[in-house]
Amino acid sequence: MDAKLQGYIDKLNALNFKEMYNGDFFLTWEKTDDEIEAVFTVADALRYMRENNISTKVFESGLGISLFRDNSTRTRFSFASACNLLGLEVQDLDEGKSQVAHGETVRETANMISFMADVIGIRDDMYIGKGNKYMHEVVDAVTEGNKDGILEQKPTLVNLQCDIDHPTQAMADMLHIIHEFGGVENLKGKKLAMTWAYSPSYGKPLSVPQGIIGLMTRFGMDVVLAHPEGYEVFEDVEKVAEENAKKSGGSFKKTNNMAEAFKDADIVYPKSWAPFAAMEKRTELYGNGDTEGIKALEKELLAQNAEHKDWACTEELMATTKDGKALYMHCLPADISGVSCEEGEVDASVFDRYRDPLYKEASFKPYIIAAMIFLAKFENPQEILKKLEERGMSRIFE
Amino acid sequence: MDAKLQGYIDKLNALNFKEMYNGDFFLTWEKTDDEIEAVFTVADALRYMRENNISTKVFESGLGISLFRDNSTRTRFSFASACNLLGLEVQDLDEGKSQVAHGETVRETANMISFMADVIGIRDDMYIGKGNKYMHEVVDAVTEGNKDGILEQKPTLVNLQCDIDHPTQAMADMLHIIHEFGGVENLKGKKLAMTWAYSPSYGKPLSVPQGIIGLMTRFGMDVVLAHPEGYEVFEDVEKVAEENAKKSGGSFKKTNNMAEAFKDADIVYPKSWAPFAAMEKRTELYGNGDTEGIKALEKELLAQNAEHKDWACTEELMATTKDGKALYMHCLPADISGVSCEEGEVDASVFDRYRDPLYKEASFKPYIIAAMIFLAKFENPQEILKKLEERGMSRIFE
Amino acid sequence: MDAKLQGYIDKLNALNFKEMYNGDFFLTWEKTDDEIEAVFTVADALRYMRENNISTKVFESGLGISLFRDNSTRTRFSFASACNLLGLEVQDLDEGKSQVAHGETVRETANMISFMADVIGIRDDMYIGKGNKYMHEVVDAVTEGNKDGILEQKPTLVNLQCDIDHPTQAMADMLHIIHEFGGVENLKGKKLAMTWAYSPSYGKPLSVPQGIIGLMTRFGMDVVLAHPEGYEVFEDVEKVAEENAKKSGGSFKKTNNMAEAFKDADIVYPKSWAPFAAMEKRTELYGNGDTEGIKALEKELLAQNAEHKDWACTEELMATTKDGKALYMHCLPADISGVSCEEGEVDASVFDRYRDPLYKEASFKPYIIAAMIFLAKFENPQEILKKLEERGMSRIFE
Repeated sequence: MDAKLQGYIDKLNALNFKEMYNGDFFLTWEKTDDEIEAVFTVADALRYMRENNISTKVFESGLGISLFRDNSTRTRFSFASACNLLGLEVQDLDEGKSQVAHGETVRETANMISFMADVIGIRDDMYIGKGNKYMHEVVDAVTEGNKDGILEQKPTLVNLQCDIDHPTQAMADMLHIIHEFGGVENLKGKKLAMTWAYSPSYGKPLSVPQGIIGLMTRFGMDVVLAHPEGYEVFEDVEKVAEENAKKSGGSFKKTNNMAEAFKDADIVYPKSWAPFAAMEKRTELYGNGDTEGIKALEKELLAQNAEHKDWACTEELMATTKDGKALYMHCLPADISGVSCEEGEVDASVFDRYRDPLYKEASFKPYIIAAMIFLAKFENPQEILKKLEERGMSRIFE
Repeated sequence: MDAKLQGYIDKLNALNFKEMYNGDFFLTWEKTDDEIEAVFTVADALRYMRENNISTKVFESGLGISLFRDNSTRTRFSFASACNLLGLEVQDLDEGKSQVAHGETVRETANMISFMADVIGIRDDMYIGKGNKYMHEVVDAVTEGNKDGILEQKPTLVNLQCDIDHPTQAMADMLHIIHEFGGVENLKGKKLAMTWAYSPSYGKPLSVPQGIIGLMTRFGMDVVLAHPEGYEVFEDVEKVAEENAKKSGGSFKKTNNMAEAFKDADIVYPKSWAPFAAMEKRTELYGNGDTEGIKALEKELLAQNAEHKDWACTEELMATTKDGKALYMHCLPADISGVSCEEGEVDASVFDRYRDPLYKEASFKPYIIAAMIFLAKFENPQEILKKLEERGMSRIFE
Repeated sequence: MDAKLQGYIDKLNALNFKEMYNGDFFLTWEKTDDEIEAVFTVADALRYMRENNISTKVFESGLGISLFRDNSTRTRFSFASACNLLGLEVQDLDEGKSQVAHGETVRETANMISFMADVIGIRDDMYIGKGNKYMHEVVDAVTEGNKDGILEQKPTLVNLQCDIDHPTQAMADMLHIIHEFGGVENLKGKKLAMTWAYSPSYGKPLSVPQGIIGLMTRFGMDVVLAHPEGYEVFEDVEKVAEENAKKSGGSFKKTNNMAEAFKDADIVYPKSWAPFAAMEKRTELYGNGDTEGIKALEKELLAQNAEHKDWACTEELMATTKDGKALYMHCLPADISGVSCEEGEVDASVFDRYRDPLYKEASFKPYIIAAMIFLAKFENPQEILKKLEERGMSRIFE
């Protein structure tokens, strides 16, 4: 057997992830360290196989259903790529941007679309207290549907971004870090700065900073969350980050000083987001159909943002990072000063210097999603990987 | 060979359905009893194979084209699932909700989209006298295109709901009944009540009640069609039902009394629909672009509906059915009193008690569609089923 | 081996098309004669294999991305069919009809959607000086992305219509001509009339007439471009046509007289288009967001068109062609007098007589697109064709 592939299999053999079989992926902190590592390992294995023209098509038929509350090109293509890599055909469930009725309607719709669905990918990040809850309703419905003999299989849920976490993004980001630093074993003591940055738009979801502090604190790194006063994230996730840091031997600190966060950082992740409290308020306003209130809040938030234009990832700030060359990260698209907006999150020269790493960072997402599906669908993924190699089917005919 | 699969093949061997090869599926009453039974048998066989992880992918490439005049989540997913199960990729032809020009334009478009199409699924149920006609125009066009050497194959048409019949719904409903009652041989003398029920919306298509009376009268059952005066369905279909009943040794009766229909019924199907005459009028108004007329008709129909709020599937009525536990059926979504509307077609407690059977009822539709395609594409489907088992390809790799 | 398939392989063996490997398809005149013939040959081979139920699925997974600036049913289905024939799943990138930002945004988006993309098909024909340029930006981006290790493969670009050329249309048209005339060797000295024709709509793209004169002049034919004064096409393409004609031993002439063009023609292609200068002006007006200017231009163009209602493909004109039975061609849909409009490009009786050939003409497009992809993906397509026959997988299971 191919030695590198055997390496991935050996790694999986040493991990306990049996709870992932037939499971779902909601939040990274609901998964054990072994489970997280299993996702990284399978993602690497699938990528390695694709690069070596070994087909990883494990489904001869089956649907991957995507449900996006928001327009999304990147995540949509990542999900479609992941499904396609495994042999699933994507079918979009377009319920529009409006909030979907909960309860019985969800239960019925979830079953009606799932007769031949192996995966459901949902992005629902706009409304605080709703997105993750909705995903659970869907999972409860199809789990019951499967138990009751309605569904021949239980589709697995992949959280493509909710109000709390953005696990496929954070996991792809982390896998990028692991590759850039030559292994998870090299991360202890590294400093990662997740910092707010100014953007001329508003209402950007909190799931990225929350996802980052909720995951990156598990690897012994010193994680700093920096933002202006008033831009607090979801408190519960901060608690997760604190506990993670304690367990992993790293640290989790908060500051209202961007320079402090960047100082000697090995990794920086400057990105705009909306204050949690404001997003909560907005959710309420939307719930009440208060158009005037929404407009007023929008105005208020833009004004608040504008007070912090100095929160930008400039060349000066980058120079203060470890050896002046911290790994710059972003989930994309970024607000680039002088390019996509007048003043934004990052200097054009900084962004341009990190273009390749940024694109590579993004390239892990389809594999992360595919790995999540793979681990939910196979009780013994090691054996499946081995058999796929033995099957020897080429992705491109040769 | 697997004994159960062999059983399906034996059943098919006893049936004459050779006219289905290269054919289309418009109306159930255009098919012989043997043909109808062949669809049920292949549907059961395909489901059995999927449940046992035997791939039924018979197309390595090919398109399944869907054309929906109306938004449709359920039927869309059923069609997509059926195509996917057989190996066809769905491609949507979005012509909007407006009426499509007939004649030459249909002929051209039908050919242009069909170069690699093996199936065309059409839902066109809104305009009386139009939907079924349009499907025939499409079939005539591609049949000629195939004969003239333009199309390498003749795509088969699957009627996903027209103005006259809803064959995939009625067939799925019937297969559900067969399974619930332990076989078609147990249906003689059973009473089925297809009854109108109140809904706060209007203009619901007639194709469901028409499809039900047009199909269910073929199995020796006592079928009762109940509705308030003024809610008559298409007379031609009533005639079909009468003839069916005569031939099958069952009966077909009409009544304006819901209680009478429910009394001792083994199966009840309470569901709202619009009067045929009103739908005819609406078609004319739309044809003339008479917006005022449409609004007036809508108002009139809602008022007419409101006079019959007592037509509801209540616990009281359910108690009068056979042993108080008739099989409750619906094509979904239902208007549930106190849940999806104030007053509707069915009591919440009734609906809830039958949730599992209702979902199972719906789960047959993808297999019915797949069976229709299968029988149109293979001259000897028995042999193909056998060869698929011999091929031994897993749906999910193992 | 099958003799006919061997014939295609022998033909390919005699051609030099090695530059097509890993390449793209922008304009036909950027390709050598051998390369053009290779596309025709592979298209014929793929069609032959499909007709004989030999699967040509060469991708076990992979995406074919389509990006249409305009609504398009025909080209969309052709692209989807081609991708499906080879095993790629189509994923639409919907950027709306608005002009997409160029430069950095294109670079980023192109990479983000291409992690698992083997093909990108773009239609962008509305704005002079933009469409082809945009396609090059996309190709540059993914080429760099592949070189930098971001993309595991370089997706190949297929130009599905730009402001300069419509290569898949012109190539399908040409393959149709070759088949109608029994081989490319029979085309020397044949007269082809590409003529303007009146249409009650305006702003039809120039890419068809340009594509036709840019390609058809390469086969020793006498190509005549006819249009009313003021309906000039892109001068650069006329120069291409002149040089082609010189090299191929044919001729390229221009005239403002439709009758002269039709006289003794073996092939006629009467079709409406907008003046190049007007399209340039429109591009500028759109760029400036000058709505009033656009409306004024529209009015002006319609009035200009109306002066040339006598430019129609009538029975009288057809009678003047070679033996009164020139091959009538059109990219469809045509403006048919008395059918789709009062007065249009062609008499209904003429169109009707050529309906079958017209549909056949269109039927080549999916195969042309598939051949372009095939030649970009395989270094030795002859060997792949042979191996596909040896693999012996049926398109439809048997």
